[in-house]
This record gives sequence, structure tokens and C-alpha cells, in this order.
Amino acid sequence: MTLDAVLARIDADLPHSTDRLLELLRIPSISTDPAFRDHCQTAADWLVADLASLGVTAEKRATPGHPMVVGHADGDGPHLLFYGHYDVQPVDPLDLWDRDPFDPEIQDTPKGKVIRARGANDDKGQLMTFLEACRAWKAEYGTLPCRITFFFEGEEECGSPSLVPFMQENKAELKSDLVLICDTAMFESRVPSIVTMLRGLLGEELTITGPDMDLHSGFFGGMAMNPIRVLTKILGDLHDETGRVTVPGFYDGVPELPDAIRQQWQGLAFDHGTFLGDVGLSLPAGEQDRTPVEMMWSRPTCDINGIWGGYTGEGFKTVIPSKAHAKISFRLVGDQDPQKIRESFRAMVQDALPADCKVAFKDHSAGPASITETNDPAFEAARAALTQEWGIAAAYVGCGGSIPIAGYFQDIIGTTPMLVGFGKDDDQIHSPNEKYDMESFHKGIRSWARILDALTERRPT
Amino acid sequence: MTLDAVLARIDADLPHSTDRLLELLRIPSISTDPAFRDHCQTAADWLVADLASLGVTAEKRATPGHPMVVGHADGDGPHLLFYGHYDVQPVDPLDLWDRDPFDPEIQDTPKGKVIRARGANDDKGQLMTFLEACRAWKAEYGTLPCRITFFFEGEEECGSPSLVPFMQENKAELKSDLVLICDTAMFESRVPSIVTMLRGLLGEELTITGPDMDLHSGFFGGMAMNPIRVLTKILGDLHDETGRVTVPGFYDGVPELPDAIRQQWQGLAFDHGTFLGDVGLSLPAGEQDRTPVEMMWSRPTCDINGIWGGYTGEGFKTVIPSKAHAKISFRLVGDQDPQKIRESFRAMVQDALPADCKVAFKDHSAGPASITETNDPAFEAARAALTQEWGIAAAYVGCGGSIPIAGYFQDIIGTTPMLVGFGKDDDQIHSPNEKYDMESFHKGIRSWARILDALTERRPT
Repeated sequence: MTLDAVLARIDADLPHSTDRLLELLRIPSISTDPAFRDHCQTAADWLVADLASLGVTAEKRATPGHPMVVGHADGDGPHLLFYGHYDVQPVDPLDLWDRDPFDPEIQDTPKGKVIRARGANDDKGQLMTFLEACRAWKAEYGTLPCRITFFFEGEEECGSPSLVPFMQENKAELKSDLVLICDTAMFESRVPSIVTMLRGLLGEELTITGPDMDLHSGFFGGMAMNPIRVLTKILGDLHDETGRVTVPGFYDGVPELPDAIRQQWQGLAFDHGTFLGDVGLSLPAGEQDRTPVEMMWSRPTCDINGIWGGYTGEGFKTVIPSKAHAKISFRLVGDQDPQKIRESFRAMVQDALPADCKVAFKDHSAGPASITETNDPAFEAARAALTQEWGIAAAYVGCGGSIPIAGYFQDIIGTTPMLVGFGKDDDQIHSPNEKYDMESFHKGIRSWARILDALTERRPT
Repeated sequence: MTLDAVLARIDADLPHSTDRLLELLRIPSISTDPAFRDHCQTAADWLVADLASLGVTAEKRATPGHPMVVGHADGDGPHLLFYGHYDVQPVDPLDLWDRDPFDPEIQDTPKGKVIRARGANDDKGQLMTFLEACRAWKAEYGTLPCRITFFFEGEEECGSPSLVPFMQENKAELKSDLVLICDTAMFESRVPSIVTMLRGLLGEELTITGPDMDLHSGFFGGMAMNPIRVLTKILGDLHDETGRVTVPGFYDGVPELPDAIRQQWQGLAFDHGTFLGDVGLSLPAGEQDRTPVEMMWSRPTCDINGIWGGYTGEGFKTVIPSKAHAKISFRLVGDQDPQKIRESFRAMVQDALPADCKVAFKDHSAGPASITETNDPAFEAARAALTQEWGIAAAYVGCGGSIPIAGYFQDIIGTTPMLVGFGKDDDQIHSPNEKYDMESFHKGIRSWARILDALTERRPT
């Protein structure tokens, strides 16, 4: 037997692999909304059963939130751990979806076949690339290529509140030689990539209260402070005219880019016009003295992810509302300290508040940035495997997103994470009409087979 | 027969008067929401029937929106026209109501009995004070005190789109010697008042579009402009640090207060601490070089009445939304031109927009301010009648609200409007748990009987 036999089996079994993914996509495992709690359990059960079909002893592990799924497969060679998450983002605004987000469909598009559903990419499609590679391997070899621990989370899209406690309590069980994570994209949708630089994430929610009841703006307008006025003033001042974030101390711990990385990134010849043009924009919106790639990968940001207050229905209502709300997130890099920034942001809001208004804050996630060392020869082996599959030299890249799990494996377990993913820029993850290219799915499975082969050096006899 | 007999009948009939008001309050005639269109028809039908019970020939008159109700009662003496509106404000946020807004209830409170329901004050309770005074008069005298035209609108809470065309088409029919309007409040909830100065209203809605789809803030954050950032920056700059509105040319046509009025207002000894304290605030929020009464009655304002964009549900979603929205209103005074301010506001927004973002505007109401001359001896007669009923010297006051109908009667029909109302500052009109004091309703009916008596000089024989 050879790797070629595994790849041939992957090709032949693709329709069944796809059917299994569609089954998982039909489970609406939205983790942030308590109404979908039971569906998260169902998705976890589905994974336990699927791991069992690979001969892996797996179980659901209860947490105060949604359950973890942990499975172990014995074997020789290196001990790998594969991480993925079975929960998905909410689907609103639902009216912008072309079909039911949980009724997945294979669609023909001008760019090829795509799998259309919430979670098609993030992260059900990506995690299934690994499971399907394992399945083909087992079908050919009768066993998985090496010792593998499987670790699936159901709270990635709602700030992973149970993750750190679970990892701390199960350090020994989660220890391995290398962690594989499949939750990232290909550079410019074409270059196979290993992500070695991830931004951190700090989420804040604030509610500003002015009057203690809604008021008529005719009688009270000009006299009563409007909390939306207070909120927009505060949020409108979060960036200065050069695009810098104005929270005091925000840039403490933000490193300058090493020259070597800067040169490598320049070599990628990133075309921001095309990147922004795809989403209807043209002007890089971050710090104006930074390159577009820096804005995305190595600079911290602040975004208002939601705002609401007052009358938002049809027509008009001349109300001064009692309350105004916003959800805000900061993407962090280098040694930026999420807790310090949280405190500084809150102090800044308090300072800007009129004396007769109040503010209440709500914590959301707080994870620092992470940078992965690529000294382990496994990285060059994986990079060569990716290059072989895709026919394009694979790259080490940064990623603007936040995958706190990568830092947790480094800090809590002491294992290096390797992030390999097959997403495309137009996959619309977190948006209506999310999709995953059939190419990403198919060649993603093949990529993992090649990587497993390269890492275990389990050459055919 | 004497006026006393009419007043005695009002006192005796109060339970039935209240029942009739409760009937009207049970009709959810929300004009701004198309879902309640049929209920607006029902409310108009109810008024036609109620006018018929007073011997008034009335009919529903179709418009492109909700119908008008017009009725005529013949008689000697002056020709009066009474205006009111049968539509009400939306009820959201519904969860802040203590009971169904359209299931009215008489409640005992520490301050006395109140009628609790949407529209209890604005304007169903107020308009019924006049109809019940007419009913008592007719019961005693067998006829109304003079020739009266009744004119009820169903679009006051949604910008009155059909009103001006209707008034222009029916000028002759709506011509009278004096217009009576009952849609205002008592000064400091205790001084019977005739409002002679009303602010105008300009309503604007804007939608800012950044990317043409929702984006993931990890991958696009720092690169893609967030329309909520653009919106909060623009709205946060609408007031300067002294509380002045920054729209260019906004203060063109704003007159300084005449000394005589300034002195009269100083004599009112308005206590802004109590006024704001009742709603949980303490600091006058308008132009800091103006007195609180000026802020409310004679200075123009800008309020954000609604704002929304991005993810506003439970939990968190790291989205850069495609769109962000706001509803904004300006209260106008003196000769401020609503159309010019609309254009200036829109130009200001366009100027502040990044080149790759778009804005769309939607018109809402646009009515100028109005000031009523009080030369007509009817004003002093009505003031004396109010003083007699309430035992406190009645006052000519300003009002921060906008009742465009007052200006329309002056400009289109050429008739002077007299605004008398019995609302209290804590009636929570436009808010959850709206109420109308039983005292307002009862003494309001009695006040109209006294005013009708004074205006018609129909003295008992």
C-alpha cells in the first residue's frame, strides 16, 4: 500500500464524505443562543458516534456550558492531537440567506461546486477534512497512522467560557507532541498556508442609561441627556483621524514587525484592491501609516460589532430612550494585555460619561495574541506535503482572526499548535450564505492524508 | 339652567365618560405600523358613531393613509373647530409595560387615580375631554353651545403625511373663527396653560453602507471600514462640547427671546432639578449658555431617536456589518427652515463619509415652529375660565413638542389655534405605561365646559 492508495480511496469515497458532512451541517448547533442548547448536544453526540466508526474511543464530557468531545486512538509514532469546534455562528439576518442555513445543499457556481450552509466552512467542513482523511487511512491500513487524540469544542463561537478550566483540569490527557487545528484559510484563496501569527480578541458590551424611562423628545429634548448621543460620542471617538485606536495604553505591547517577516509579507504581493473590491470597498480603513497586510495580521483593531437603542421599527418615534447599547471587540497582537485594555476602555467610557448618566459593562471573551515557533521539523514536513497537494509553494502566514485555543495549547498544555486550513476569502463565514468550496473539502482531506503521511513517516511496506 | 348645572352633570356622568374613553383606548390604533391599519379604521368609525350620539353629522374621509373624521354641528355664536388625533404611538419596548397597553385600567396610585393605557393622554384622553364637555352641554341645553366643526386625524404620530393635502383641498369646510386643540400639558403638572409657542420638527433616517455583505471582523478588521464606526463618528459630532448642534447654518433664523417673554418665564420659577429628577437625571443637557426653560421651549435641538446595526442579540458575534442605521429628529424654533436644515444635514453626512461608503436618506416629517398671537379676546376669556376651574392663575407658555397642525391652521386656513391641554409631566406619553390622571380627565372636561361657556357667552336665561 502507498499514500497513493489512500488518496485514491479519498477520491472514490468523496460522495460519502460529503453526505456525512451534510448530516452534521443539518444540526443547528448555534452555541451563543440558549434556544439551541439541545442541538449542541446532538452535534456532540454525532461526533462521538462518528469517532466510534473510526475505532476511536470517544465520549461527551460535560462542562457548565456545551460539552466537549474527547477521543483517543492508540498507535505508534508521534502523538498528535486534532482540535475542531462543532458549534456555529448565529444565522441572522436570516432574510439575507438564499435558503435555510441548516438545509445544506451542493450548488454549482461559476467558480465550481460549493457546499452551502451555516458551518459549511466554520468549522464543520474544516474539521471533517481531518476525520475523512483518518477514515480513508483506516480503510487502507486498518488503523490510524499514529496515536491521535481528538478534541472538539462546542463554545468556540461564544467565547469558549468552559475551555480554559477544562484544559487546566485535563492537562495530562490533552498532552501530545503536536496539535493540529483546522479553522483557518488559504492565503488569497489559493496559497496553501500554515498560520503562525494570530490576533487575540477582547469582547465588551456596554449599556448607557440616561433617563430612567423613555421620554418624549419634544417635551424633554434639549433638557434630558439622550444616551444614544452619549454612546455615539464615545464610540465616535474610539478612532482618531489617522485610524489609531484612542483607548489609553492600547498600543502597549504591540511589537514592530521583524524585518524578515516584513520582507516575506512583501513577497506575497497582497493586492488589497482585489481583496476589498470583493466586498464592495476600496480603502484600507486601519492605521494609515501601515500596509494593508499589517492592518490585517499584525496590528490591533477596534470594531463595533453591534449597536442598538431607541425606536428601530417602521416609521418614526420621537423618543429619547432610557438606554443605548453596543458590542465592541478589540483584536490584539503581540503582548497586548486583554485585561489591562478592558480596564482602560472602561475607565475611558466612565470619564466621558455625563455625571447623571450610568454605564454597565458585560464581559465577553478575552484572549491574547499568539505567535507560533516553526522550529519543529513537522512544520517543514507539513509545508512540503501541502505544496505537493496544491502545486503552489505553501506559506507561513499571519491571520487577523482570533483562535485563542492556539495560545491555550502553548500556555496551558505546553504543546505547539500547527494551524492548517482550506477556507477561501469568499466563504462568508459569520455571514449569510456561508459556503465551503468542494475543492477545499476534497483537497483538504487529501492534504491531511499527505500531512499525516509526512509526520508519521509511515511509508508503505 | 346655569353653567353649574353642566358642571354637576359632568361630575355625575364621570363614570360613563370614563367607560367611553376606555372603549376608545381598547382600539390599538398605532398609525406608524402598517399591521395596525384596520384598527385605525375602527378608531375612526368609533369617533363617527360617538359624534352621531352628540347629534353631529360626521363621516370618515378617505386619504392615501389613515382616514380623517370630520363632523359639523350647526349653532349660533362663534364658529369653533376642535382638532384631535385618534392614532397612538407604538408600544415597544413592550416588556417594560406593566400590562397590555390596549387593556386600559383605572389604577389607584399615591398621587390619585390614573387611567393606564397607550393613548390615555396622547391623544385619546385629551380629545375625549372636549367630547364629554359637549355631551354634558347637550344633555342640559339640548344643543351644543355654538356652531362646532370636529376634525380628527389618524396620522399625527407618523408625521401627518395626508394632513396638508387634505387641509388644502378642504379649506372652506375647515374654516372657523377659532381652532381648539387639546394635545398639550399643564405647566409643571399644576398650572393650567395655553401654549402659544411650539417647536417645529424635522425627521431624518439614514443608512450607511460599508462592505456589501457582513464580514468577519477577524479577517477584515483593520482593513474594511465598519459602517457603525462611520455612523457613530458622524452622530457623535452632531453636538459640540457646549451642547450646540453642529449642522452648518442650523441656527439661522433662531430668534433671541423677547425680554417680555424672558421675564414671564423667569416668573414661572421653573425647577429643573425636580423636572429632571422625576426621570432620573439632574443636568440640563442643551446649550450650556441657555436657561433650562429656554432649552425646552425656545431653543432648537437634535436628538437621535433610534440607532441599530450589526449583531444585537444574546452573546457575541464578531461581525463587521454591511449597514448601520439611525433615526434623527431636529426640534425647530423661530424661522428655521426645515428643508434647508435637511439639505445641510445631508451634505454634512456626505462630507464625513469615507469615499468607499454610501449613505441613503429617508424623509420623515418636516414642519416649522409656530408662535400664536393672543390678541383675540377669546384667549383672555379662556385663560379666566381655566383659572376658575383650577384655582391657579392660568399661563401662556411655550412647549418643546411639535404640533404642526397649529401652524397649518394659521398658514393654510388662516385661523388662530388655541392649545389647551391637561397632561402631566409624568404621563409617560410615547413611553411604556402611559397614563392620564383621572383629575386631568375630570377637570379637563369641566375646563372645556367653562371655556365653551366663556367663548359663547351663552348665559343661562
